[in-house]
Amino acid sequence: MSRKVVELFYDVVSPYSWLGFEVLCRYRNVWNIDLKLKPAFLGGVMHSSGNRPPGLVPNKFLYMVTDLHRLAEYFGVPLSPPSNPAEAMFEKGSLPAMRFVTAVAEKHKDDDALVEKVSRELWKRIWSTDQDITQPASLTEAGLKAGLSASEVEELLLLATSQTVKDKLKNVTKQALDHKGFGFPLTVCHVNGKPEVFFGSDRFELMAHCIGEKWVGPQPTKPTAKM
Amino acid sequence: MSRKVVELFYDVVSPYSWLGFEVLCRYRNVWNIDLKLKPAFLGGVMHSSGNRPPGLVPNKFLYMVTDLHRLAEYFGVPLSPPSNPAEAMFEKGSLPAMRFVTAVAEKHKDDDALVEKVSRELWKRIWSTDQDITQPASLTEAGLKAGLSASEVEELLLLATSQTVKDKLKNVTKQALDHKGFGFPLTVCHVNGKPEVFFGSDRFELMAHCIGEKWVGPQPTKPTAKM
Repeated sequence: MSRKVVELFYDVVSPYSWLGFEVLCRYRNVWNIDLKLKPAFLGGVMHSSGNRPPGLVPNKFLYMVTDLHRLAEYFGVPLSPPSNPAEAMFEKGSLPAMRFVTAVAEKHKDDDALVEKVSRELWKRIWSTDQDITQPASLTEAGLKAGLSASEVEELLLLATSQTVKDKLKNVTKQALDHKGFGFPLTVCHVNGKPEVFFGSDRFELMAHCIGEKWVGPQPTKPTAKM
Repeated sequence: MSRKVVELFYDVVSPYSWLGFEVLCRYRNVWNIDLKLKPAFLGGVMHSSGNRPPGLVPNKFLYMVTDLHRLAEYFGVPLSPPSNPAEAMFEKGSLPAMRFVTAVAEKHKDDDALVEKVSRELWKRIWSTDQDITQPASLTEAGLKAGLSASEVEELLLLATSQTVKDKLKNVTKQALDHKGFGFPLTVCHVNGKPEVFFGSDRFELMAHCIGEKWVGPQPTKPTAKM
C-alpha cells in the first residue's frame, strides 16, 4: 500500500506549528504517511491572505497563553512563551531563521532529517529558552546543536542569503497560499489525488479519519513491528 | 464523588457552538459532569472583546466551509451552511432567537431539557434547513417542534421581550466576558474551584484530560450501567 503524502507548512515563529510538527514527526512512524516538511514564511501568508495575528485581540492573547501552556504539557513539548512575545514574533520575526532552514532544505533535498533537527533547535530557542533566532551567531548555535559541522553551518549561512534560497522560501510560501492558507501550521494530506487541508494543531483526530488512520493521542507509542 | 460543573456558553448563530453543544450533551451521560447550558449573545462578546468574525478573511471563510462540512460528518450533526451566511449571521443575527431561548431558561430554571430542545430546533433552522430565526412565526415553529404547547410558546414570546429576559441575556453574556471570552462556544470547567476555560469545539480531548475523564471521540456510546 503506497504511503499518503502529507505536507506540513510551518514557521518556527508559530508555537502551534511546533506542536503540530512534533505530533506529525511522531506519527510518521505510526501512520502510513510520507511526511514532507515545508518550511515557509508565516509573515508572507498572513500578509497575502489579509489575516491578522490572533494575539491582537486581548482576550484571545490571554487565552492563547493558557491554551499553549495546557497543550504543551499534554503534548509533551517543552514550550514556554518568550518574555516579550510581540518583540520576538513581530519586531524581530523569523525571516533569517526560515531562510536558514530553507538553505538546509535546499542542500539536503532528499532527506528531511536535518531540516527537522534544525527547525526543532530554532523552536527551542524562540519558544522554550527565550533566545534570539535572527542573528548569524544564533543560527550557528542552532545548527551546531542540530549536529551540523561548523564549516557546514558557515556554508548554509551564506546559502541562506542567496537568491536561490530566497526564491525557494517565497515559492514554498506561495504553495501554502495556493492551498488557500491563512496561517500555520497548515497540513495538506493528499488523499486519492485530492488535497485535504487542515489548519492548526487541533484536527489530528479528524485528519486521521480522513486518511484512514487512527488517532491515539499526541504521544503515540511506535508499534514494535510494522505491518 | 461530586460532579464537576461544566458551563457551555453558546449562541445558535454559531455553527461551531452547535458541534460543541451536541458533543457535550452526549458526554453529560458519559462523563461525571453537571452540564449547565448558558445561552448568550455572540454579537455582544465579539463587540466587547474587539474580536472580528473569522469569515471576514476570505481564505479563512473558504476553510471554514470545508472544515464545518468535514466536522459535521465526523461529529454526526446535520450541519449545512445557509445559502447566504453573511445575511443569516450578521444582517439578521440571533438576538430575537437568543432572547427566546433565554425566556425558556427563565421559565424553566431548574431544568435544561427544554433549553436544549429549543436551541437544537433553532440551530436546525439556521444551520441545517436554511430557515429564518428572527420572526415570531419562526420562533413559534421551533418551540412547537421542541415540544412546547402553542399557549406556552405565546407566553414565552411575550416573556422574551421583557426587561427581565433582556437583562438575563446581557448578564449571561457578561459572564462569558468575565471569563475573558472572545467567541463561542466557550466551555468553562470548574475543576477544584478553578475555572478552566476552553474556546471552540476542538479541545475535548484536552478538556477530558483536565477534568480527569476520557475522550473517546465525538459519538460516545452511553455506558449501560453507571458507576
